[in-house]
Amino acid sequence: MEQVKIIALKESVLEDNEQDAQALREELKSRGTCLLNLMSSPGSGKTTTLLALNRAFNGRLRWGVMEADIDSAVDAQTMQEAGVPSVQLHTGGMCHLDADMTRQGVRALGMEDAELIVLENIGNLVCPAEFDTGAAINMTILSVPEGDDKPAKYPLMYETCDMLVVNKIDTLPIFDFDKARMERCARERNPAIEIFYISAKTGEGVQALADALVRKVKEWNAT
Amino acid sequence: MEQVKIIALKESVLEDNEQDAQALREELKSRGTCLLNLMSSPGSGKTTTLLALNRAFNGRLRWGVMEADIDSAVDAQTMQEAGVPSVQLHTGGMCHLDADMTRQGVRALGMEDAELIVLENIGNLVCPAEFDTGAAINMTILSVPEGDDKPAKYPLMYETCDMLVVNKIDTLPIFDFDKARMERCARERNPAIEIFYISAKTGEGVQALADALVRKVKEWNAT
Repeated sequence: MEQVKIIALKESVLEDNEQDAQALREELKSRGTCLLNLMSSPGSGKTTTLLALNRAFNGRLRWGVMEADIDSAVDAQTMQEAGVPSVQLHTGGMCHLDADMTRQGVRALGMEDAELIVLENIGNLVCPAEFDTGAAINMTILSVPEGDDKPAKYPLMYETCDMLVVNKIDTLPIFDFDKARMERCARERNPAIEIFYISAKTGEGVQALADALVRKVKEWNAT
Repeated sequence: MEQVKIIALKESVLEDNEQDAQALREELKSRGTCLLNLMSSPGSGKTTTLLALNRAFNGRLRWGVMEADIDSAVDAQTMQEAGVPSVQLHTGGMCHLDADMTRQGVRALGMEDAELIVLENIGNLVCPAEFDTGAAINMTILSVPEGDDKPAKYPLMYETCDMLVVNKIDTLPIFDFDKARMERCARERNPAIEIFYISAKTGEGVQALADALVRKVKEWNAT
């Protein structure tokens, strides 16, 4: 198997990240690519979810993945081995990606015809929420073992995201996780947030999430 | 039950955090207080571990807790209800605490005779590892559901910490978590790291951790 490409990101010299993010969003829109920014705590199952989505997409989307990490190339290698074009982005200790760093990744990935590019952001509920990456869709994963109180403790993440994926629902019987409490709290912060329940491990709920994503991506690229 | 004190931390104006951290460490040492900086991902069980430790300390330490959070006062209230003097520190969106913010918390807690003060840092494996808070002991919690690959992905956290607590070991049978792989990887980064396995929920392993901490705190304060 081909070694995955590893890119050391350079820190942005641009002053206005929001303007830059808007420019990147428009560039990607004009070429028919929807960028999804995937955020979560460390270990919530971002890569496992992407692998499960790949099976459920079942060839309906041309897509690629940018795996951001402080170190290691494990995730990009895993995605590539599953047949998804991938690059590994190293942030050199940085706790988030901004739009300029995201653009460096998009260039390195080089999939001009991609309908969807997923940025797997650094595992962190704080800093990534503060930086617009140029994504059309912001998604966060909350895994059941982390607890139902995360929307109360990391409000900006939930305000920023269009989609909330609750992962590891196969472990609901063994953790104290009150779905109603979590939903109430997330919707207080963001009434429009769409919530999906999945187990990336068992596959439960993944098809519905994949179908919703395919629909969103095709819509975004068509308008 | 008395309402817990909530402190809005001010951003530090000091240039040299390392110097400031060293000064705070010496101040605390001269009054016989050991500061422990507790770090982890969101939802690893920091507060639940502190509650379990409180039971296992069984009155052997005069101790207090500073609960840092972006929002909410849930954790400090929980600790106070368990009889542990606590303050809630709000960082106003900041992803970590530096030594000056820690000093503001120590003053607000006001326990001049504390043998141990625990700073429960923001749930984040990246930024808190970069800032010396003035702590004598740095501890990180890794919960089993997060996976055994965290030391490879967040190396600085493991390099920085003296103690690693692996929590939620009651869930080992249902997650793919290779203890040997995790230990090898953590010790590659930090050969001296002390590793403890606990379940804060069932209490397994907590007594050994509490005993080790009592010993460390008494030793640090005595020398």
